[in-house]
Amino acid sequence: MTSNTILRPSPISATVDFAADGVQHGFLRLPYSRDDSAWGSVMIPISVIRNGFGPTALLTGGNHGDEYEGPIALFDLARALQAEDVKGRVIIVPAMNYPAFLSGARTSPIDKGNMNRSFPGRPDGTVTQKIADYFQRTLLPLADIVLDFHSGGRTLDFLPFCAAHILPDKDQEAKGFEFVEAFGAPYSMKMLEIDTVGMYDTAAEEMGKIFITTELGGGGTATAKSATIAKRGVMNVLKHAGIVDGIVEPQATRWLDMPDGDCFLFSEDAGLAEFVADLGETVNKGEVVARIHPVGRTGGVPVELRSKMTGILTARHFPGLIKPGDCAAVLAI
Amino acid sequence: MTSNTILRPSPISATVDFAADGVQHGFLRLPYSRDDSAWGSVMIPISVIRNGFGPTALLTGGNHGDEYEGPIALFDLARALQAEDVKGRVIIVPAMNYPAFLSGARTSPIDKGNMNRSFPGRPDGTVTQKIADYFQRTLLPLADIVLDFHSGGRTLDFLPFCAAHILPDKDQEAKGFEFVEAFGAPYSMKMLEIDTVGMYDTAAEEMGKIFITTELGGGGTATAKSATIAKRGVMNVLKHAGIVDGIVEPQATRWLDMPDGDCFLFSEDAGLAEFVADLGETVNKGEVVARIHPVGRTGGVPVELRSKMTGILTARHFPGLIKPGDCAAVLAI
Amino acid sequence: MTSNTILRPSPISATVDFAADGVQHGFLRLPYSRDDSAWGSVMIPISVIRNGFGPTALLTGGNHGDEYEGPIALFDLARALQAEDVKGRVIIVPAMNYPAFLSGARTSPIDKGNMNRSFPGRPDGTVTQKIADYFQRTLLPLADIVLDFHSGGRTLDFLPFCAAHILPDKDQEAKGFEFVEAFGAPYSMKMLEIDTVGMYDTAAEEMGKIFITTELGGGGTATAKSATIAKRGVMNVLKHAGIVDGIVEPQATRWLDMPDGDCFLFSEDAGLAEFVADLGETVNKGEVVARIHPVGRTGGVPVELRSKMTGILTARHFPGLIKPGDCAAVLAI
Amino acid sequence: MTSNTILRPSPISATVDFAADGVQHGFLRLPYSRDDSAWGSVMIPISVIRNGFGPTALLTGGNHGDEYEGPIALFDLARALQAEDVKGRVIIVPAMNYPAFLSGARTSPIDKGNMNRSFPGRPDGTVTQKIADYFQRTLLPLADIVLDFHSGGRTLDFLPFCAAHILPDKDQEAKGFEFVEAFGAPYSMKMLEIDTVGMYDTAAEEMGKIFITTELGGGGTATAKSATIAKRGVMNVLKHAGIVDGIVEPQATRWLDMPDGDCFLFSEDAGLAEFVADLGETVNKGEVVARIHPVGRTGGVPVELRSKMTGILTARHFPGLIKPGDCAAVLAI
Amino acid sequence: MTSNTILRPSPISATVDFAADGVQHGFLRLPYSRDDSAWGSVMIPISVIRNGFGPTALLTGGNHGDEYEGPIALFDLARALQAEDVKGRVIIVPAMNYPAFLSGARTSPIDKGNMNRSFPGRPDGTVTQKIADYFQRTLLPLADIVLDFHSGGRTLDFLPFCAAHILPDKDQEAKGFEFVEAFGAPYSMKMLEIDTVGMYDTAAEEMGKIFITTELGGGGTATAKSATIAKRGVMNVLKHAGIVDGIVEPQATRWLDMPDGDCFLFSEDAGLAEFVADLGETVNKGEVVARIHPVGRTGGVPVELRSKMTGILTARHFPGLIKPGDCAAVLAI
Amino acid sequence: MTSNTILRPSPISATVDFAADGVQHGFLRLPYSRDDSAWGSVMIPISVIRNGFGPTALLTGGNHGDEYEGPIALFDLARALQAEDVKGRVIIVPAMNYPAFLSGARTSPIDKGNMNRSFPGRPDGTVTQKIADYFQRTLLPLADIVLDFHSGGRTLDFLPFCAAHILPDKDQEAKGFEFVEAFGAPYSMKMLEIDTVGMYDTAAEEMGKIFITTELGGGGTATAKSATIAKRGVMNVLKHAGIVDGIVEPQATRWLDMPDGDCFLFSEDAGLAEFVADLGETVNKGEVVARIHPVGRTGGVPVELRSKMTGILTARHFPGLIKPGDCAAVLAI
Repeated sequence: MTSNTILRPSPISATVDFAADGVQHGFLRLPYSRDDSAWGSVMIPISVIRNGFGPTALLTGGNHGDEYEGPIALFDLARALQAEDVKGRVIIVPAMNYPAFLSGARTSPIDKGNMNRSFPGRPDGTVTQKIADYFQRTLLPLADIVLDFHSGGRTLDFLPFCAAHILPDKDQEAKGFEFVEAFGAPYSMKMLEIDTVGMYDTAAEEMGKIFITTELGGGGTATAKSATIAKRGVMNVLKHAGIVDGIVEPQATRWLDMPDGDCFLFSEDAGLAEFVADLGETVNKGEVVARIHPVGRTGGVPVELRSKMTGILTARHFPGLIKPGDCAAVLAI
Repeated sequence: MTSNTILRPSPISATVDFAADGVQHGFLRLPYSRDDSAWGSVMIPISVIRNGFGPTALLTGGNHGDEYEGPIALFDLARALQAEDVKGRVIIVPAMNYPAFLSGARTSPIDKGNMNRSFPGRPDGTVTQKIADYFQRTLLPLADIVLDFHSGGRTLDFLPFCAAHILPDKDQEAKGFEFVEAFGAPYSMKMLEIDTVGMYDTAAEEMGKIFITTELGGGGTATAKSATIAKRGVMNVLKHAGIVDGIVEPQATRWLDMPDGDCFLFSEDAGLAEFVADLGETVNKGEVVARIHPVGRTGGVPVELRSKMTGILTARHFPGLIKPGDCAAVLAI
Repeated sequence: MTSNTILRPSPISATVDFAADGVQHGFLRLPYSRDDSAWGSVMIPISVIRNGFGPTALLTGGNHGDEYEGPIALFDLARALQAEDVKGRVIIVPAMNYPAFLSGARTSPIDKGNMNRSFPGRPDGTVTQKIADYFQRTLLPLADIVLDFHSGGRTLDFLPFCAAHILPDKDQEAKGFEFVEAFGAPYSMKMLEIDTVGMYDTAAEEMGKIFITTELGGGGTATAKSATIAKRGVMNVLKHAGIVDGIVEPQATRWLDMPDGDCFLFSEDAGLAEFVADLGETVNKGEVVARIHPVGRTGGVPVELRSKMTGILTARHFPGLIKPGDCAAVLAI
Repeated sequence: MTSNTILRPSPISATVDFAADGVQHGFLRLPYSRDDSAWGSVMIPISVIRNGFGPTALLTGGNHGDEYEGPIALFDLARALQAEDVKGRVIIVPAMNYPAFLSGARTSPIDKGNMNRSFPGRPDGTVTQKIADYFQRTLLPLADIVLDFHSGGRTLDFLPFCAAHILPDKDQEAKGFEFVEAFGAPYSMKMLEIDTVGMYDTAAEEMGKIFITTELGGGGTATAKSATIAKRGVMNVLKHAGIVDGIVEPQATRWLDMPDGDCFLFSEDAGLAEFVADLGETVNKGEVVARIHPVGRTGGVPVELRSKMTGILTARHFPGLIKPGDCAAVLAI
Repeated sequence: MTSNTILRPSPISATVDFAADGVQHGFLRLPYSRDDSAWGSVMIPISVIRNGFGPTALLTGGNHGDEYEGPIALFDLARALQAEDVKGRVIIVPAMNYPAFLSGARTSPIDKGNMNRSFPGRPDGTVTQKIADYFQRTLLPLADIVLDFHSGGRTLDFLPFCAAHILPDKDQEAKGFEFVEAFGAPYSMKMLEIDTVGMYDTAAEEMGKIFITTELGGGGTATAKSATIAKRGVMNVLKHAGIVDGIVEPQATRWLDMPDGDCFLFSEDAGLAEFVADLGETVNKGEVVARIHPVGRTGGVPVELRSKMTGILTARHFPGLIKPGDCAAVLAI
Repeated sequence: MTSNTILRPSPISATVDFAADGVQHGFLRLPYSRDDSAWGSVMIPISVIRNGFGPTALLTGGNHGDEYEGPIALFDLARALQAEDVKGRVIIVPAMNYPAFLSGARTSPIDKGNMNRSFPGRPDGTVTQKIADYFQRTLLPLADIVLDFHSGGRTLDFLPFCAAHILPDKDQEAKGFEFVEAFGAPYSMKMLEIDTVGMYDTAAEEMGKIFITTELGGGGTATAKSATIAKRGVMNVLKHAGIVDGIVEPQATRWLDMPDGDCFLFSEDAGLAEFVADLGETVNKGEVVARIHPVGRTGGVPVELRSKMTGILTARHFPGLIKPGDCAAVLAI
């Protein structure tokens, strides 16, 4: 699809007015005809809190439907934030891939769409592509700063970090890292994305927007601790952006780096995963990170996954069983 | 079914000889005719390590298929333990409900059977009932001490504890608590079971066996930390039983008690669960433990679940979404 | 199961107090452990409206989960009825087979249980059997008069009628027909049940309760007209019972009778059902009621289903396609 | 896909000869390789009745698979119509989306394709797209007048009407309305389609064909009354076209109009739908059309859906339960 | 269930009269209420061909739904056999487990019931148990000689043989083997059943009936050759019984014996099954029968399954992939 | 997609080095993010055996996942072939559509992709399209001779033959037929493909590669006999190519031809398929090949499928039940 293709209008209509002052709670309504509702729709909750002129923050969670720190922070913020607290505008979509979120899964139960691989989307595509297209052509252009919450989901677990991308435009990049610093997660990361195809991140960055993201835990749950990081982080971002008054709550953070492909350990075997190190622990090059026990019979020798570098265990496969091709562990320095 | 009913023989046959010395890795073979295998079987891995006369320990994991500390410790032990390490006999079934274990689920994908509600089982029942019957009539009678590993599974998370039941036979009870102490988990518990129908625990205890169990974490995963507790615990139990030589590795443990029904908090609402306290933290009576955010639209007020007692948060609902009737939290003192 | 079997207590606990005055909205909580909630429950909504002494009416809908006049009338009544409107007690369970109701299906998605074939139930049975057992041993004994709403569901459509059974106890029977008359549906029926195995009706009648039921439409929907019949009918019943003050709203009703097996027409063929008569129309013996068009190719001759008696078309198969063995039509006189 | 793209030939082959005189019953055979038939096909029944020269009518049902008046009228007509009854040609496809029709669903079980959003189709696309492409490139070009039967399907119910579109070519438009008048449904409608993407209607109209359609009921069934409207209507159309001799059976009809978006009422809530008005009744602006009862507990206040205009209730959501985003009601004037 | 339990009547009704002379084609109608047909039934085709007095043969196929020689021979016979061809009575049920047969599977899609493990059945049990009960209490008592067709189904393949059981009543046994000889399959077998629980065979034999069965191929198909064996065999049986006139068509047969458990080879591994011998070939003790290639990666060494006896390869696992616990091969001598 | 489109790089990475000498067993790793593994991959086994310079043979099985002679021959060859046996290079992918192979199905369980209709594939398409693209742009360019094994799969059965296509480049064609002759199957075939869209064959031939293929049996299994044909054939091909030393093992073969569409017999009816001829038998024009018995009731007349030509029965529908549109039989001369 080339840039000069003329796209049909989005089938999505918003029940909120993005230009109006005040607090509005409404929906993005996406018509979706199907066997159990000929004239049905997907109704994606959205809030707009606006007060006069100022920057616009677009805050999103549920890009993957099984990651919960973002939705917790954003459903809570949408309810609590008053128009008078704000200068400019805050647009909140706590669950971008709302069908995935409702089913507690990474991807949409309707079309198996992975939202973060669906940009720029299509107005005549699948449900997930239609949502992506609406963000691409309607919501992102309204934004100055975009914060998109992620965690590991049901199948990965992460050390809590906030991140922005290394970008060609160094001014844009520097502003991103300032916002990461402001967010104040225990860890922070400068990411160099290799394969940017279909990402929301890239869509925002290519429009020149400041874009920050997070990984705040995982396993398909949230803890009091990880939810607190998310709730404090989003307020810090709004303060740093000047949308909410007050000073950023300062937090110590440790910057991490993932230099190359040696960071990743993949399993070639199916079995029962026994981790020998936990998240945040240092693993030396050549040491065992995990043992994969064969489960078809007792007495078998486990396969050892050994680290290809010295670093901190930053992410790991979460479920007790692992399959061939699964990423078992990620190290950072 | 009354006690004097004459039951047909179990359809399960073992490929190991329980009376033979040495290390044997084999199967419990349970014929299971079905659409994709007319003359198929369920093959449950089992190890028997025997060296002369002495007590028999029956060690089991995977009673629920999504609990991993037990299978990790037991697949590892089955491979490592040599006949010369042992005086007496160790019978290891790392995954009792093997079909459930293979599918990473609490219950069997074949019949939705919950193993721990299927005792005493039936030789002509479902696959899960046939396995229970084999434990009831063949394996349990061979045992002196039974250790059955549990964790929270995919939908619950627990503080790590080892436990035995309060029993009418106080001698049997006392021995159980000694083994719990020997196991050496960070927490220990004396449990008074209200509804014992169908439990493996009860089946063993009614035969006069010493029976201990655990809850060592949850969420459908295991950490290096929780696996270490399990591996050390099982060795301590074998040492305490005199089956393995050496002295029990002493561990500090904190004893917990769940006095009555006020320990349990159930959700009456569906929504997004935000916990305000984490496992191990003390919650005072009347304080909020979790908030259930409605997710159908933004702007809704979350329901607050408040503690009915002062205690330690000992277990919690794990997934990010919660449904009406789910146990949200358990407190202990 | 013989009458002198000692049953274990029901696992269901009510969050309402049946003996307390006032309006209570609560739940029947039925513990249900499963893969997606280890300590989950089924939560069946229930209301108790009580004011001093007087008779007890037990009002139920959703015995089959895809029949809607009952739930509409009863959710509405539960919300509207005040304690001061009542003398005695009204117990309302708008959706007996609540899992079936939530999924819009006749039977439970959990165990495919047909509630009206599950009585007297079992406390250690399936979810549906546990609900039946709770009605059998806890709710029915509290009642004097029982009104159980039915309609045709997604696969049948009925002329709207209220009914009671022909019973051996003629006093009990007469009272039942008085209540049917009071209900005031457009049609009324005296039913002689051939196969009473597992029915809620029979369970109530065998305890000597007055039991009336309805068929008020079908197709898996309700109309303004059919909902009105249900709402008026239940108020008339409460008035006739003396629980609510006021006089029964008089309605013309036509009594129908289904004398023998000739009332029923079954299809032996699969195809597209074309009805030649509509509900309420008179069909003469030997006339075509429906034609079953073969759909595998065009040009085929439809099979004609002809009436075995002269009568009113009282019920019909609802979906456009019909299968061998489906009841196509029911006539009454 | 631009108009000058050269498309590969359709993979569909017809077993009938469109140019031959006489009555032929055959198939459109669409090769469909799949797990359960490597060299399988979809076989779509078709009839061609031709007698010399004259106009061609293309008659279709089952565009959506759960709408039955069209298939009843057309399977019946295909069987009954003789070559000597005809001057010109009648092509009958009683079930366009035959896989959907066989499964009693709106969309195809193979690819979830909605036939009426799949035009112009693709010869190398999904099964539904291949059928659309065959109509687009083979059947529509043969036709002078196209009658496509619709009803509400399992999830909507309609007042019975015949309709044609408001078109830029006023001569084409006028002829369409004449055919609507001739069809003789109780209601008639002039439709202004907003979103015509993918519609069969548009495909036909863009080729300059006269195209009429219907909505004749719904709920996934047909009544004797609605089937009669369809059967009489199609004969009237053939007479009006001069293909069948005889005069059009005159019927009173009432013309309806849907002026703007205020015609539609959508539900933002899930619950039990209680309609306060039935199809054909007049509802005043601001009046309640339906109440959505919450079903998670008793005692909740229903949400009221109020009319945004004064009009006749022309269509409604059919199933007893409603979901957020479902169209609850349509009014016309 | 003890023999003196009083069972309720079967819910199944036959549309044929077993006592009437002539040819009748009808159904066993079993009411089966379910979500897609509230008042639906299972309709099992049955034929009765009777002419005066004489013995009764009960001929059945489709005991397992994916075995085809029986249904082919019996649908064909039912159509072809005339009353005047017969002295006595022939009852034909070409597909006992009719729901399984329609879905091409071993067991019933309704309840996963394996018909040949469901006897004596229950009138209030599952659909499969209700069918078994009808055979147990209604059809078997009518029969003198019972022929039940089997083959290997989709997952096994057999040398074609006819068989009867070694029985305590040697007269009954001898008659059985005479009928096997008369059937005239290429192979014949005297079977000693170890586990007779739930078998149709046993049900018939315990009533003193002559019972013969077959295994005539497998893989979920039939060949011209195997169908011919079945068609000739059933006619030979009817002739030998004196029900049909004429002399038994003599066939050479080879008697086989399966002396003990060494006949069976089970796989303990999953993989790709490469057979080294084909059905009918002789395998010496210790020779490789099949190699199981691991498929997770290339380069792995296949597991060899070696014969525990010298014999003829009589049955084998059919699908290309094999699972732990599957029976790989059966040898006979 | 036109030839000058610039495609993004394949997401697949190989763990083997195609340029290195020696034996390597590794994987094609295809990242595949999904609900049960956020950072998961499909791991397709591959072997490369290389020894200095010489031609490259690309050997593939499992193009359709339920065809087993190829995978058996190739897993076996990959394990057995040593670098010193080879001059040049052998690339072995025993299961191209590895997800389909693992599930024992023709098409991929992930996307229902039919590998042999997915060429040239897409780097940003479905999993099946990504695999096709990797063959198109990476593996096929490395090859001189391509051997792709097929059989009938679960739903077809074939006489065993090797085949190459009639091609415009007669030199390329001649070399193909020489390799077919060398392969040495019992039958050989010159194929004229009508519809080449999406085929692997065509992709290879258009690059000027020599491409041969097989059909070696079917039904979703392999016999000792058919596996032997495959194993001998692949060695003959490597010898004929000069990659492996030694002379081709000569085999008698019979050349077959499928002249036109009269070769194919399709069923228009559903039912039970009784074949009257077996594979390899000659059928005369007008003779019955198969009879389709209706199964809805007994007594129905079977539909006869009669041959449109005189020829050898070369392929047939395998399962016992047949559906409308299924290819029932193929004849060749």
